Amino acid sequence: MLLYLFFFFFFSSLLSCKAHPLDPLSPSEFIVIQQTIKTSNLFSSTPLYFQYIGLADPDKLLLLSWLSNTSNSPPPRQAFIIARSDHQTHELHVDISTKSIISNTVYTGFSFPLLNFEEQTAASNLPFNYTPFMNSIKKRGLKSSEVVCTTFTVGWFGEVKKSKRLLKILCFATGDTVNLYVRPLEGITIVVDLDLMEIVDYTDRFVVPVPVAGGTDYRSKKQKPPFGPRGKPVTVVQPEGKGFSIDGHSISWANWKFHLSYDVRAGAIISLASVQAHDAKLYRLVLYKGFVSEVFVPYQDPTEEWYYKTFFDAGEFGFGLSASSLQPMSDCPTNAEFLDGYYAAQNGSPVKIKNVFCVFERYSGDSAWRHTEIGIPGMVITEVRPEISLVVRMVSTIGNYDYVTDWEFKTSGAIKFTVTLTGILEVKGTSYTHARQVEQDIDLYGSLLAKNTIGVNHDHFITYYLDLDIDGYNNSFVKAKMKTVNVIDGSSPRKSYWTFVKEIAETEADARIELEAEPAEYLVVNTNKKTKIGNDVGYRFISHGASSISLLSDDDYPQIRAGYTKKQLWVTAYNVSEKWAAGLYTDQSRGDDTINTWSQRNRVINNKDIVVWYTIGFHHAPYQEDFPLMPSLSGGFELRPSNFFETNPLIKTMPFNETHWPKCTNNL
Amino acid sequence: MLLYLFFFFFFSSLLSCKAHPLDPLSPSEFIVIQQTIKTSNLFSSTPLYFQYIGLADPDKLLLLSWLSNTSNSPPPRQAFIIARSDHQTHELHVDISTKSIISNTVYTGFSFPLLNFEEQTAASNLPFNYTPFMNSIKKRGLKSSEVVCTTFTVGWFGEVKKSKRLLKILCFATGDTVNLYVRPLEGITIVVDLDLMEIVDYTDRFVVPVPVAGGTDYRSKKQKPPFGPRGKPVTVVQPEGKGFSIDGHSISWANWKFHLSYDVRAGAIISLASVQAHDAKLYRLVLYKGFVSEVFVPYQDPTEEWYYKTFFDAGEFGFGLSASSLQPMSDCPTNAEFLDGYYAAQNGSPVKIKNVFCVFERYSGDSAWRHTEIGIPGMVITEVRPEISLVVRMVSTIGNYDYVTDWEFKTSGAIKFTVTLTGILEVKGTSYTHARQVEQDIDLYGSLLAKNTIGVNHDHFITYYLDLDIDGYNNSFVKAKMKTVNVIDGSSPRKSYWTFVKEIAETEADARIELEAEPAEYLVVNTNKKTKIGNDVGYRFISHGASSISLLSDDDYPQIRAGYTKKQLWVTAYNVSEKWAAGLYTDQSRGDDTINTWSQRNRVINNKDIVVWYTIGFHHAPYQEDFPLMPSLSGGFELRPSNFFETNPLIKTMPFNETHWPKCTNNL
Repeated sequence: MLLYLFFFFFFSSLLSCKAHPLDPLSPSEFIVIQQTIKTSNLFSSTPLYFQYIGLADPDKLLLLSWLSNTSNSPPPRQAFIIARSDHQTHELHVDISTKSIISNTVYTGFSFPLLNFEEQTAASNLPFNYTPFMNSIKKRGLKSSEVVCTTFTVGWFGEVKKSKRLLKILCFATGDTVNLYVRPLEGITIVVDLDLMEIVDYTDRFVVPVPVAGGTDYRSKKQKPPFGPRGKPVTVVQPEGKGFSIDGHSISWANWKFHLSYDVRAGAIISLASVQAHDAKLYRLVLYKGFVSEVFVPYQDPTEEWYYKTFFDAGEFGFGLSASSLQPMSDCPTNAEFLDGYYAAQNGSPVKIKNVFCVFERYSGDSAWRHTEIGIPGMVITEVRPEISLVVRMVSTIGNYDYVTDWEFKTSGAIKFTVTLTGILEVKGTSYTHARQVEQDIDLYGSLLAKNTIGVNHDHFITYYLDLDIDGYNNSFVKAKMKTVNVIDGSSPRKSYWTFVKEIAETEADARIELEAEPAEYLVVNTNKKTKIGNDVGYRFISHGASSISLLSDDDYPQIRAGYTKKQLWVTAYNVSEKWAAGLYTDQSRGDDTINTWSQRNRVINNKDIVVWYTIGFHHAPYQEDFPLMPSLSGGFELRPSNFFETNPLIKTMPFNETHWPKCTNNL
Repeated sequence: MLLYLFFFFFFSSLLSCKAHPLDPLSPSEFIVIQQTIKTSNLFSSTPLYFQYIGLADPDKLLLLSWLSNTSNSPPPRQAFIIARSDHQTHELHVDISTKSIISNTVYTGFSFPLLNFEEQTAASNLPFNYTPFMNSIKKRGLKSSEVVCTTFTVGWFGEVKKSKRLLKILCFATGDTVNLYVRPLEGITIVVDLDLMEIVDYTDRFVVPVPVAGGTDYRSKKQKPPFGPRGKPVTVVQPEGKGFSIDGHSISWANWKFHLSYDVRAGAIISLASVQAHDAKLYRLVLYKGFVSEVFVPYQDPTEEWYYKTFFDAGEFGFGLSASSLQPMSDCPTNAEFLDGYYAAQNGSPVKIKNVFCVFERYSGDSAWRHTEIGIPGMVITEVRPEISLVVRMVSTIGNYDYVTDWEFKTSGAIKFTVTLTGILEVKGTSYTHARQVEQDIDLYGSLLAKNTIGVNHDHFITYYLDLDIDGYNNSFVKAKMKTVNVIDGSSPRKSYWTFVKEIAETEADARIELEAEPAEYLVVNTNKKTKIGNDVGYRFISHGASSISLLSDDDYPQIRAGYTKKQLWVTAYNVSEKWAAGLYTDQSRGDDTINTWSQRNRVINNKDIVVWYTIGFHHAPYQEDFPLMPSLSGGFELRPSNFFETNPLIKTMPFNETHWPKCTNNL
């Protein structure tokens, strides 16, 4: 106990001298929170289970004020806690320095908080002590040692009364493979009441063959010849060392600085991203805060065993909780640095995720700009600058799927957001073994990928919260629509050209954007700040693919819960409580706390503090190449400075001196 | 002469033992062609000027037959030549081995061939001996030593009679900058008759200030402090050496092999791209031939000095002729290999472009696939494979603009096509110096970028010719449309899901695709080849952004010439003469030989040899950051195997052994 106190104070003092108000909760802070609640005796009669513990957002104006003069005391550090006790969901705020509970309220809505790991593990283990399930396994010729079960959220399908906190359990065969997801025990559905932690419903409707294990294991040590083409490795070196520095959670690189935090729900949170112009030492704010707010994954199969698979990977499973420890040399290149993350276990104790983020300078062989000039007699000019960018990476593995999320900062002032999908498909067992057995009139809801294996059609909608503060607090959203002008007065030999019709969105209703509906550029500008020649400073959005929107009908329940996925881009007025695209409580949500519902308030967003919500969308129809494990597929968007700088900020960047670079290729 | 003959035979003999029927014309072959035509006495009375000399496509069936048994003699090597003589355009075919002219016809259509460098240089020099122009320069306070002129094609604007071969000349001030394009002498238009090589029309309609030179030079040696942020370099090493080999023009790497050729019009031509599955030594054809067929760049300004700027950069200026010599260490990474290209000068002599292509293995720090598995009790499995791909790069600099075109081959079997725009904007001089002077009702046709400088709105449409032969000669085009199905019979708690409605395009009319019109996947499949479980083998198209289409009215003349830019994707029946999207003769073309006109024949394309035309499109509205030189902006698409392989071909690829990799960062 003495030792514990020692560490406690040791960490506390470390914290007081280094902490940034936006730093994630530290291990010692988690312990303060755990102890503060424990010693409060508020929950002494019934057990308390933590579902979420994270930093409570400091008041934005207080934080901005502190930033403008950091000799003032920073905003107080407080934690926001969601916990379950006695079948109720509690919301608490704890002040960390005073170790006091500031508020404790009971959430009375229909929905449920983030699942924690421990309850999912406990639920997954229940079937193995449940006789009907053991009979189902036997019926399929399997031993319990070669079966594993995992957890699936149940969704909401129009139930009117308040539901219990339920979870479905599906089970898979391992056997001679670790690729469990491709060996489903189709036909069995198990429903668990999480508060009771017991199976409350069980069905085994039919048996189809469990697909074979052979050829599905993806581990290198399990591969047998003939092997695939063995390439020659390429690795990176930085002859002058790294170009970025990490001070606590603050990162600076080239003309950028920003704060990187971890949250068990959102994963990476980038705050205060600010960029410097070459002619000014001053950093100018671009992004006050950005993170992945929700990941909606609806499967497109209405049958009994599949209809409910309409997951909210961030709000239900935790995009940060699901973060995988990154592997040096493969998940990130050799020049990467790694950061750890901490979340609270079910009992509130801190748990470390080692290497939750990596940060590295990316060079893919491209140029940031180039030009060859032969137009001046007697001269041949070629100037090229290699493109080196800074990447912050997290990988979130939600059961079968791996999402690689990259935040890429460019010296041009752009920020590129990329999501890469890989991992394993969720497949459906079938008795079909050949495409010819599938009649035209039978809808597989997917494609036959292997014998007894259907890859079910589904979508991925990754929604970013982007609280942009372009060069200041109040911003506006501009729709610059490209319109064809017909020249009918004979004033030109041309008959047409396109020009912009620009509109500033006055209210939220003006800023619900389906990107592909019309040709347009979308910008966030600061009409209070002008360039020297008088343009509004701004940034614009550029899609780099994966801009699909949901095709579900508007009245379908999953769509009601994720109505925002019918538009790629929404703009709302800043509100500290509007952070989670599908609601603070997403499990069994009913769509009453989503971007759509907030946008219905139709607040004024012209020259206000605004938040942009951008959804990257993939329709995923599986092909055989996605089996037994998917090759990476990427999509994303870019925020690109648009009259933010006076001129191209890259011109005044000197080229590298390449003379002393290692040419290891030639030496070896 | 003896020496010449020696080299001639030396090269010929080299050629006979190494040449591939698709190899580009070699220097010695250019000389054979030049001499064959010269000694034929066909053009002895009037001078002959070469506009295009390139390899005539070998008959496809002959070539495929030779490929199936290369001990047979290859198809004969023939050259296709376009030349101007006596105000006429001649088309010739020369057989290289027999040194004979096979055909010589006169083209009688309205349009004109590719411009050659020498006539553009001659035309650009004319103004300096033209008194009205010298007066115009003086009026603007400039000396002729600080003025340069360049050439612009005139387009077609409804003229009915056959036009002369005209070119417009625009002039720019250099002075204290090499960035001539940002200092236009606005108001002056000079028209040159290329056959007469004299100025036939001259106007100087108005004077606006020439924008200042200060701050526009982009050369590093001209920059003054404060400099931009100086990053730390990142470079690549290949500890085990390069993974690809180049044999003549044939390249093999990992599971790919293909042929890379240079053409003065198309630039890079990739042929016979074939990929191997891990379980078969056999290479399977994917792409019989692919190249950039046209680059259409319409400016959106209908005024007298700008309306005609509707360029076809490949058909008018030569995408290959405009290729820049790539700079080692900056245009391409240190591990690149370079290839040279040869084209024919105006007199037929070979001219070398050093480093016209580079080939390198790209590693950008991403993974080809990954998965972390924690679902099996007691195990934590993480498998990650770094993504290393092979890039073939060319940079084409058409005056002010630089286009970086990348062909990227992936071990997954995908081919990624990326176009990167950089270089210098074509700007318009103006008397405006501040945005407040621009009234709402004045259309600038662009944006004020600097004092006296408007960045004019424009588009870039880069159209690829893709003669896909997916696992064989006859292919089909599939439109797999995603349709929402409403569940109305109460059979599911869900109300909707999406599924595919697949159609095979029967004729060309069924394959004119506007990508954003509806959610769909587009595939090329071989219905004659099935995977083991019975799926048609195929590849699908995936957009990675830049999918804009033309907004000009259908009856506008530039749009008639480039009507195909209203759809991103067309499929036509293979026809050896249908190679150039906007016609073989593009200068002053009238739209009578374009993808549209061919598609109007509405040929059957189901289970036929088919060609896919894919257009990458950018609407480019300039911002201040694009001045004085544009940061790179990329877009493109991917051809991804879709039931082409039995399973993911990457699983059986062993990871690299990283233990001996250099960690130069730590050592330095």
